[in-house]
Amino acid sequence: MTVVTDVPRIFIEACSSVRSQVSRLVGTEEANESYGMGAGGDVTRKIDMVAERAVMDILKQYGLNCTLIAEEAGKVNLSNGKSEGFVVLDAVDGTTNALRGIPFYCCSIAFADSNKLSAVKHGVVMDLFTGDVYSASKGNGAFFNGAKIHVKEKYDESRYVVGMNVSGVNPAKIEILKPIMSKANHIRHMGANALELCIFARGLMDCFIDIRNKIRVTDIAAAYLIVKEAGGILISEDGRELEVELDSNSRLSFIAAANKRVLDDIAQTTGMKLKM
Amino acid sequence: MTVVTDVPRIFIEACSSVRSQVSRLVGTEEANESYGMGAGGDVTRKIDMVAERAVMDILKQYGLNCTLIAEEAGKVNLSNGKSEGFVVLDAVDGTTNALRGIPFYCCSIAFADSNKLSAVKHGVVMDLFTGDVYSASKGNGAFFNGAKIHVKEKYDESRYVVGMNVSGVNPAKIEILKPIMSKANHIRHMGANALELCIFARGLMDCFIDIRNKIRVTDIAAAYLIVKEAGGILISEDGRELEVELDSNSRLSFIAAANKRVLDDIAQTTGMKLKM
Repeated sequence: MTVVTDVPRIFIEACSSVRSQVSRLVGTEEANESYGMGAGGDVTRKIDMVAERAVMDILKQYGLNCTLIAEEAGKVNLSNGKSEGFVVLDAVDGTTNALRGIPFYCCSIAFADSNKLSAVKHGVVMDLFTGDVYSASKGNGAFFNGAKIHVKEKYDESRYVVGMNVSGVNPAKIEILKPIMSKANHIRHMGANALELCIFARGLMDCFIDIRNKIRVTDIAAAYLIVKEAGGILISEDGRELEVELDSNSRLSFIAAANKRVLDDIAQTTGMKLKM
Repeated sequence: MTVVTDVPRIFIEACSSVRSQVSRLVGTEEANESYGMGAGGDVTRKIDMVAERAVMDILKQYGLNCTLIAEEAGKVNLSNGKSEGFVVLDAVDGTTNALRGIPFYCCSIAFADSNKLSAVKHGVVMDLFTGDVYSASKGNGAFFNGAKIHVKEKYDESRYVVGMNVSGVNPAKIEILKPIMSKANHIRHMGANALELCIFARGLMDCFIDIRNKIRVTDIAAAYLIVKEAGGILISEDGRELEVELDSNSRLSFIAAANKRVLDDIAQTTGMKLKM
């Protein structure tokens, strides 16, 4: 049996295993083979299945007694005895990018000691293209390849970089976001939310907004802790602390802002009620 | 004096020189130092200046008799005798990404034998993060690291990847784009148009739309030829062939579509008159 303090090391090893198994599939027809419907409600592709199995193999190898919450497999009991907690997994976030060969996709693994987002204690996200590792443990800060990171402190409106997910967004939500698109000179959407949140946590974007209510808790659990530990604000669309049950069907909206001033700016520009 | 057929090789060498000189500046404060207003109307940053000079040094070294049209320096006569044509340069496309450290920015260099976009005969774009090279010469096809590329042929609406630049877009244009944002499950904007068009030319995106009328000809000249030679459709917002004078102040809008079916789809969804 593994003690919980080993968790980040195990997760990094699991991500590395995903990276080595997935790299040969990126951009191939084979990666796109369908394996039926996953627990998260999308079709499971071979690349997702291979990646998820790679993580499960490592978790089993180390005997981590946990309940796995995964995008494809759903809820799986991996414990032989008493479960030590929940492992929340999106083995490939940015599957479409990986299927196409657009170099922006990642593996996201989080550990929580109870069944809710705020109970996440460890989070690891690996950029599967570069191999860069983002990690955080509650109360110990956030790291990029082992170096401490912090969200952007400097406020420079002229060079504002706004991450924004508008893929398949409801027209009513576009009305809310329209003033930001018009105002900000630099809108970004790379196509892998967990990795985009990590880039935000590293101080490379001023905010990241996804109010589509489509993001799964499996996509966001690890990045949630990384953002928090990097000093970022991460709240729901109605200005509350982000909270949701750890389940492969849980969906949410969020606004991540580097500081209070950026958050106020978003609220003022859009009219959203984001006062905390 | 250099003969024009050497041009692609010289351009690749110029891009490599940019890459080696720029890499140490990426994500630093130093890169952001202001050097006044560039010819294209934006503040020139140190990173842009260093990159542009690196290209000019290589062009001079090979004695390429040309008129340079560059984002920062504007129009510069580099010929000792008779000018052999125009070199259209954006030494760093995606400056904001490079300044922040977001790994998506490129160097774009084109050669034209007369003063208009359709006269572009050679184009090279280097991904300055990965070092990957996109290139094309008129009538000889487009290449990615030396391998022939083609725009996406397969039509799969459920996995449609739509590149779309909405940075600082006029609200009226958002109204036009809104139905696509709602319909497409995969919207992307990485933040370096030239490189995004190359990724499109490689078949990784189905279309790329920028109707803000903000793109400079320096941003697009090389990618224009790469897209055309990869079999892509590249037209103006009103459905005409893309054409513009080679000048650092020329601005344009464009729609790039992998095939006629994708173009019809964009026209139908948005109501834009894109019949060619």
